[in-house]
Amino acid sequence: MLELINDFNQLKFKYNEQGLMPAVVQDYQTKEVLMVAYVNQESLKLSLKKGETVFFSRSRQKIWHKGETSGNKQQIKEIYYDCDQDTILFMVKAAGPACHTGEDSCFYRKLAEENLLDKDQPEQPKAAEFKQGQV
Amino acid sequence: MLELINDFNQLKFKYNEQGLMPAVVQDYQTKEVLMVAYVNQESLKLSLKKGETVFFSRSRQKIWHKGETSGNKQQIKEIYYDCDQDTILFMVKAAGPACHTGEDSCFYRKLAEENLLDKDQPEQPKAAEFKQGQV
Repeated sequence: MLELINDFNQLKFKYNEQGLMPAVVQDYQTKEVLMVAYVNQESLKLSLKKGETVFFSRSRQKIWHKGETSGNKQQIKEIYYDCDQDTILFMVKAAGPACHTGEDSCFYRKLAEENLLDKDQPEQPKAAEFKQGQV
Repeated sequence: MLELINDFNQLKFKYNEQGLMPAVVQDYQTKEVLMVAYVNQESLKLSLKKGETVFFSRSRQKIWHKGETSGNKQQIKEIYYDCDQDTILFMVKAAGPACHTGEDSCFYRKLAEENLLDKDQPEQPKAAEFKQGQV
């Protein structure tokens, strides 16, 4: 069961033109970002009531209780909201993968990463140099 | 400098009606979610080029190089994208607070948390009972 820290009815959340707010879902233990979905006012209230994540599916245009069919429910440990009050952060304990592909997180593909052999970084010794310097 | 893992031009990112995608920003060490902002195609390309987060400011309707005036830049360590290709995740090393309020994270306020004294949980011994049962 969830306990409200702030008066929900006093908070003026800013929903977009479709009446939605993005909701980031993060694993409460590993801190991994599992997914980003959307809530409307009704699904946010249902999340609070059930203690499990309930979204609004943009593709199906209806309330989506995560894991209701797959079993991969997300038990809510904490809910945060941002400074602009237009984004929600769910800290959850997930019963299974967040992603429909079976991956734990929907963010399983990397677009880019820091090139550690960048000129700004201290240069790594070359294999030959390394050997010379070692006993 | 960032190295592309996937061919950016081959990826078909799904921008919304305003040409935007939400971008979650997470601290690469603490894993704290720092903020959620929006990118358009141009700002995402600039992020890749600079190796620092560049967003599109919805309020100012222009490209927003995070930290350009405040100094609180976010150096990109890794970029992930989600299964639907409509959300980006930046793993960053932040030079300062992400939030304009001075807080490290924009998600500094809690809406709700799990009530650990819930009926579903094993009941805690009452003070009187505890005393009786102890030496």
